[in-house]
Amino acid sequence: MAVRVILVGQGLVATHFAVGIERIKRGELEPYGVPLAKYQLVYDIKDIELVGSYDVDEEKVGKTVYEVAKKAVGDILPVPETLKSITVRRGIHLGSLRGLPFKAKGLEDELGSVRAAIEALVEEWKKLQPDVVMIVATTEPAKPFHKVEDLVKAVERDDRDRLSASHAYAYAAYLYAKDTGRSVALVNVIPSPLARDDAIVKLYEEAKSIVLGDDGATGATPLTADLLEHLAERNRYVHSIAQFNIGGNTDFLALTIPERNKMKEETKSSIVKDILGYDAPHFIKPTGYLEPLGDKKFVSMHIWWKTFNGLEDELVVNMRINDSPALAGLLVDLARIGKTLTERGIYGTAYEVNAFYMKDPGPRGSKNMSRIRAYYALIDYLKKTGIIRA
Amino acid sequence: MAVRVILVGQGLVATHFAVGIERIKRGELEPYGVPLAKYQLVYDIKDIELVGSYDVDEEKVGKTVYEVAKKAVGDILPVPETLKSITVRRGIHLGSLRGLPFKAKGLEDELGSVRAAIEALVEEWKKLQPDVVMIVATTEPAKPFHKVEDLVKAVERDDRDRLSASHAYAYAAYLYAKDTGRSVALVNVIPSPLARDDAIVKLYEEAKSIVLGDDGATGATPLTADLLEHLAERNRYVHSIAQFNIGGNTDFLALTIPERNKMKEETKSSIVKDILGYDAPHFIKPTGYLEPLGDKKFVSMHIWWKTFNGLEDELVVNMRINDSPALAGLLVDLARIGKTLTERGIYGTAYEVNAFYMKDPGPRGSKNMSRIRAYYALIDYLKKTGIIRA
Amino acid sequence: MAVRVILVGQGLVATHFAVGIERIKRGELEPYGVPLAKYQLVYDIKDIELVGSYDVDEEKVGKTVYEVAKKAVGDILPVPETLKSITVRRGIHLGSLRGLPFKAKGLEDELGSVRAAIEALVEEWKKLQPDVVMIVATTEPAKPFHKVEDLVKAVERDDRDRLSASHAYAYAAYLYAKDTGRSVALVNVIPSPLARDDAIVKLYEEAKSIVLGDDGATGATPLTADLLEHLAERNRYVHSIAQFNIGGNTDFLALTIPERNKMKEETKSSIVKDILGYDAPHFIKPTGYLEPLGDKKFVSMHIWWKTFNGLEDELVVNMRINDSPALAGLLVDLARIGKTLTERGIYGTAYEVNAFYMKDPGPRGSKNMSRIRAYYALIDYLKKTGIIRA
Amino acid sequence: MAVRVILVGQGLVATHFAVGIERIKRGELEPYGVPLAKYQLVYDIKDIELVGSYDVDEEKVGKTVYEVAKKAVGDILPVPETLKSITVRRGIHLGSLRGLPFKAKGLEDELGSVRAAIEALVEEWKKLQPDVVMIVATTEPAKPFHKVEDLVKAVERDDRDRLSASHAYAYAAYLYAKDTGRSVALVNVIPSPLARDDAIVKLYEEAKSIVLGDDGATGATPLTADLLEHLAERNRYVHSIAQFNIGGNTDFLALTIPERNKMKEETKSSIVKDILGYDAPHFIKPTGYLEPLGDKKFVSMHIWWKTFNGLEDELVVNMRINDSPALAGLLVDLARIGKTLTERGIYGTAYEVNAFYMKDPGPRGSKNMSRIRAYYALIDYLKKTGIIRA
Ligand SMILES: NC(=O)c1ccc[n+]([C@@H]2O[C@H](COP(=O)([O-])OP(=O)(O)OC[C@H]3O[C@@H](n4cnc5c(N)ncnc54)[C@H](O)[C@@H]3O)[C@@H](O)[C@H]2O)c1
Ligand SMILES: NC(=O)c1ccc[n+]([C@@H]2O[C@H](COP(=O)([O-])OP(=O)(O)OC[C@H]3O[C@@H](n4cnc5c(N)ncnc54)[C@H](O)[C@@H]3O)[C@@H](O)[C@H]2O)c1
Ligand SMILES: NC(=O)c1ccc[n+]([C@@H]2O[C@H](COP(=O)([O-])OP(=O)(O)OC[C@H]3O[C@@H](n4cnc5c(N)ncnc54)[C@H](O)[C@@H]3O)[C@@H](O)[C@H]2O)c1
Ligand SMILES: NC(=O)c1ccc[n+]([C@@H]2O[C@H](COP(=O)([O-])OP(=O)(O)OC[C@H]3O[C@@H](n4cnc5c(N)ncnc54)[C@H](O)[C@@H]3O)[C@@H](O)[C@H]2O)c1
Ligand SMILES: [Mg+2]
Ligand SMILES: [Mg+2]
Ligand SMILES: [Mg+2]
Ligand SMILES: [Mg+2]
Repeated sequence: MAVRVILVGQGLVATHFAVGIERIKRGELEPYGVPLAKYQLVYDIKDIELVGSYDVDEEKVGKTVYEVAKKAVGDILPVPETLKSITVRRGIHLGSLRGLPFKAKGLEDELGSVRAAIEALVEEWKKLQPDVVMIVATTEPAKPFHKVEDLVKAVERDDRDRLSASHAYAYAAYLYAKDTGRSVALVNVIPSPLARDDAIVKLYEEAKSIVLGDDGATGATPLTADLLEHLAERNRYVHSIAQFNIGGNTDFLALTIPERNKMKEETKSSIVKDILGYDAPHFIKPTGYLEPLGDKKFVSMHIWWKTFNGLEDELVVNMRINDSPALAGLLVDLARIGKTLTERGIYGTAYEVNAFYMKDPGPRGSKNMSRIRAYYALIDYLKKTGIIRA
Repeated sequence: MAVRVILVGQGLVATHFAVGIERIKRGELEPYGVPLAKYQLVYDIKDIELVGSYDVDEEKVGKTVYEVAKKAVGDILPVPETLKSITVRRGIHLGSLRGLPFKAKGLEDELGSVRAAIEALVEEWKKLQPDVVMIVATTEPAKPFHKVEDLVKAVERDDRDRLSASHAYAYAAYLYAKDTGRSVALVNVIPSPLARDDAIVKLYEEAKSIVLGDDGATGATPLTADLLEHLAERNRYVHSIAQFNIGGNTDFLALTIPERNKMKEETKSSIVKDILGYDAPHFIKPTGYLEPLGDKKFVSMHIWWKTFNGLEDELVVNMRINDSPALAGLLVDLARIGKTLTERGIYGTAYEVNAFYMKDPGPRGSKNMSRIRAYYALIDYLKKTGIIRA
Repeated sequence: MAVRVILVGQGLVATHFAVGIERIKRGELEPYGVPLAKYQLVYDIKDIELVGSYDVDEEKVGKTVYEVAKKAVGDILPVPETLKSITVRRGIHLGSLRGLPFKAKGLEDELGSVRAAIEALVEEWKKLQPDVVMIVATTEPAKPFHKVEDLVKAVERDDRDRLSASHAYAYAAYLYAKDTGRSVALVNVIPSPLARDDAIVKLYEEAKSIVLGDDGATGATPLTADLLEHLAERNRYVHSIAQFNIGGNTDFLALTIPERNKMKEETKSSIVKDILGYDAPHFIKPTGYLEPLGDKKFVSMHIWWKTFNGLEDELVVNMRINDSPALAGLLVDLARIGKTLTERGIYGTAYEVNAFYMKDPGPRGSKNMSRIRAYYALIDYLKKTGIIRA
Repeated sequence: MAVRVILVGQGLVATHFAVGIERIKRGELEPYGVPLAKYQLVYDIKDIELVGSYDVDEEKVGKTVYEVAKKAVGDILPVPETLKSITVRRGIHLGSLRGLPFKAKGLEDELGSVRAAIEALVEEWKKLQPDVVMIVATTEPAKPFHKVEDLVKAVERDDRDRLSASHAYAYAAYLYAKDTGRSVALVNVIPSPLARDDAIVKLYEEAKSIVLGDDGATGATPLTADLLEHLAERNRYVHSIAQFNIGGNTDFLALTIPERNKMKEETKSSIVKDILGYDAPHFIKPTGYLEPLGDKKFVSMHIWWKTFNGLEDELVVNMRINDSPALAGLLVDLARIGKTLTERGIYGTAYEVNAFYMKDPGPRGSKNMSRIRAYYALIDYLKKTGIIRA
């Protein structure tokens, strides 16, 4: 049985995901970076099947995923020919590339309204029959609705300011699930609040579907979580935390725009108080764009604290991290878990899953915990629900 | 009720412990660096009472702990006058300061045999009535006996080559417990295998006592454990681990002597395979002595791995860490836990406690686990046994 | 013979300067951090005499420098009582504290016009008889005039938007020199373009005076200059440079305001092309404010390059640096050099001096060079001009 | 006109040199990492011609440089076919691979005496007609002779303990020069004291030849030199310096053997006192071998100091550096300079050249200086002697 996946945003993360699963299927790549690769899940990595891809960048729409991948990662990775079979389709824009040096057009521009665009998507998806829709588009400003009616009204009124692209896709996936009776798993690894939006969670429950999110936890944030847990367990008193991130991919470029940066700062900072128990002063955010670094970002982190007898210790962490593959590796699990969750009758959202894979885990009001704790809680949960096989 | 503590080795760790608990009792110091300070244990930190101190350095024997502390940490800490009431007594040497620039003499030199020295200690302890004996002496070469008779024979034969000072102290504490019927908790935070020596564990069981050990887990080792767990959970493939440690205290000076260094290298390296599941190539050991660094060591660590799509990530950690206070903070817990364990009828050794506090946890053959896991297992265990109060 | 100094901006730098020279005079402090301390200059460090101090912060104006110092550094340094003799006077504000959480009032607010304020200063200085005026006030947005008449007109028109406080002080010092016939050395260690403003340089030449500037070179910038020189000399091709700076003093707080940050970014970035010969992509700027770090900033820097055979090397530098003392140490030289230069008949500005001590050396259009080169050029120059004695 | 070069020790450095110059000749590689590439020297890089190669490893002797290079760097670099024309010849062993996991045999083993081996080399070189002989063999224990007669006697007596392989090669090159009347430049980039051995310098003067050495300055040592200069120029007082180096090439493997490590520690440490003016406590040496790191070593360095007002600053440097290419790039200059020096009538040794390119510059008793200073002194010297063309 296949796990049928649609990617929304055919950028670096999506491309690493697409290339990676094809290479794993061909037996040429070990599944390093896939957390649960060593467990036997209900669905194997090889069951994952890419059935659709959406973007709004005129340079990508109409190209095959193979062409996009060749251009993006062709110099560092072999790109499997199988990716020629998937063509990037036009998605909903809603300004999520605004201010960035790309030419973008959305279905709503072509069809005249967001509602028409959503309906067009639903029709396409009825043919593509996805089990999983993954949002890996550019980080955009977005606010939760919490009330279903407010979300519905925003669509009706074609309120393009209030409505984020993420919400439009989430709503489309819900309609698709409701119309067809097929459950869908929406995997949201960008900062838009979807799993933290009561409205979305409610709709997904109703449609026997699930939303997992928000904002994939890769790179410095989960590491910081575990470092803080390490300190908290020794009752060390943290004076401050500084964390710099700089990279040269378009994700970092997008995050130089203040309101997008703000979205990340929020999801990134949420760990401090949740883990330490007090809000240690911190500076944690994407710091800058430096083109030659490409997708291999540079991270620097400074933490200092009071130890026994009131003396002061100090820790500096520096990293060079391949940004997008890290998230792509998580998607390999999330796709498989997402589908199985709905099959096990788990609808709405699943905190135990979000707590490990996401920076700001839904549902609304959920606490962050250290990743190592979240990992063991996740394993327990997946065993209990039978998603990890005995 | 008091927790009566004897310190073996009045060095920096013992001194930070002695100074710290007095300052906490006087209300002038927050118990940062004491892992369980935020829990209510059967014994409070203020219940800890220092009743005896042993050393073999002629510069220390006969001085009060106050005098020793003034000299060692008087420039950075206020030294409470209450420490004037404890005088450093002569312990058993057995060569554990050999090759180091200190003039040392042990009871066995004065009394002619190790057996006589052990008996002298037992007599003293009958008066001091310790609940806890803590070994914080200089790291020395030591090998386990595993058979009780071999240990007994080594004492009988006055075999000063085979017998480590740590073993002599452990044996003395056992005799004291047996003779008096008072349980004792031996806390061994140096690399000598005591909690990993079947012979010692057996004797302690017999005497309704407990040995906790071996080698206190502070500084880079437990952090490395948690970093490796972090990587393992994401199925990243670790290429190699380099970890340098340099400091200017006498502990680092002692570790420049190859056979002592070897003792540490073993306890430090044991984490790699236990946590990753494979023996990633590593260089982990105390690397050098640099006097101006004093007790605030410099640590540098390099780890790199394969992530998703076969790409390579890299992590560097640098730290300045107050070496001795870190261990002193752990001793504050270990003293309290040690006494309560025997009161709860738990004898021999206690893996759940060792796994968090020790680099190479006994009993023999036990695995290391990441500290974050060990922490939660510890909390569960302490709640179950009632050592942490509801 | 004394070097009579006025400080403009009684902040951390000025305070470290004031405290440090008094401590050196009393023989309780070695002159570490003073570059030329090991040379015999015409004026000894002990010849420096603080004769006046200016600020616009209502918390400081009217207090003695002793009181200000006690509050600012009293917890980490002994503050000499001699500083009780200098009271902080009100200076010209011109909005240079705007947007910051301080209550400020300038002479121009009291006296109704900038011209009146300048004249008031000149009158005071005629009594204080400074040889050196040092601008160590908050970084402010400022643009050069280049034409003397434009500067004069801005004063006449009371054009408070066009005129920076730095320019007002510089103009006052010029008038003072012209009126009295006493040469003055204006030392500008903030980013305002004064030594790079043709108008200022011209006026100072005319008044047999000198302006040294701009923006004191301490911390990461001069180190980066020397690292880049190191790479350039080996013909390594630099891919990119990322440099983060974060601190908790009010200087960092001020630099969170974009237009002030811009001033620093410009002076900091000017080294790259000048030293490498090409404009390697870089991100170099004050990055954030984190209060607990205080005056001891955290710096992180990443540089990577192509080496022989086209392979890639990588360098990361991390620092904890006392920000203000570093600049105070330079001021000790600059005061002495400044006065001697005018005595040697060197007027306008002196590139050789600026090139070592300043981030963006005047006169306008001057190149940056690595600090090590600049140092030896400086020593030569000072020997040639007799400022360093044989 | 060609610069005819013989390589002694066909290891990684020699291989990067051989591959690099061929790639530069073919126009496929920019000469990054060659310090003087941007100057016009008397000899161009393209004039360098490899005419011979020596080794004693049975795995290499008899193979072509192409084969050796394919195996050593074939996975990361294209290996030019032109290297098929040079076959690795058997050199003099004198135990310089002893204790390492390689099977080695020297000419002296085949021919019965060191003298015979030296004579055989001289005969071969008369045919190969080298201008430059470069010693890039494994670091070996070696002591200077200082008296020519002692060196000559050691050869006569076949004193294989006293005589290092480096000295044997140096003596052979001298004999070759004397016999043929052709000047030779011996470039010694390993720690053996040759340029610091009065005996060798004297012989080379006599034979109108030159020896440049000792121990190529790449990696952390020259960078440390420049960092210390940076600190010294600001009169900062350095408390201590810790420098760790770990790598996975056979050079690091060799340096795990104590007496070889000692050779490096000496050349590496000589900078501290020479540059700072006092012997700041330091730990500077190759620290360990970690195979997966390969030729890209990891370096970590900690320096801290007293700044103005007695406060303390701290600096940490971490690097990943391609070890062998760095030295190969220097060899490209040294070959060209070496030949031209003899043509300009400069014999014996040349401190100005050594001071920049070598860790421990000859002649005996010479001081180290920071590299940036040495660089400008070198440029002046090369211009004055006409080696850099106007
Ligand atoms: N480690 C990680 O890379 C990581 C971690 C957490 C979150 N994320 C998030 O994942 C997202 C993707 O990251 P990336 O590195 O692939 O970025 P990217 O810039 O390479 O790709 C984003 C893609 O989305 C497309 N897009 C933008 N708006 C769209 C819309 N409305 N509909 C469809 N497509 C749209 C863009 O054209 C682009 O192709 C970002 O939001 C990023 O913040 C990434
Ligand atoms: N973070 C840490 O500091 C840490 C962590 C784990 C283990 N340890 C271990 O703790 C021990 C103590 O560390 P420290 O920093 O206090 O060292 P230290 O050198 O300051 O103190 C050791 C003391 O033990 C004394 N001693 C030596 N042999 C003795 C003997 N036979 N009997 C009695 N006293 C003896 C010495 O004279 C000295 O006073 C060391 O073995 C160290 O390896 C320390
Ligand atoms: N290493 C360094 O600290 C360093 C290096 C280069 C440049 N600088 C520059 O030196 C200046 C001083 O640094 P600091 O750390 O002392 O900052 P600070 O904030 O501690 O002090 C600045 C002082 O200037 C005063 N001020 C503001 N506007 C004024 C005005 N118009 N007239 C008189 N006083 C005024 C403020 O009230 C404050 O007391 C800053 O501009 C900073 O950018 C510092
Ligand atoms: N950046 C650098 O790599 C650097 C810097 C300074 C000095 N060095 C020195 O350069 C030398 C070469 O470094 P490498 O990385 O190429 O090492 P390597 O181990 O790769 O090569 C050394 C070669 O010398 C050969 N050899 C050993 N003894 C010999 C002898 N008696 N005659 C001829 N050949 C002999 C070995 O078989 C080997 O092939 C080392 O001594 C190293 O310490 C290297
Ligand atoms: Mg990203
Ligand atoms: Mg220690
Ligand atoms: Mg500053
Ligand atoms: Mg090398």
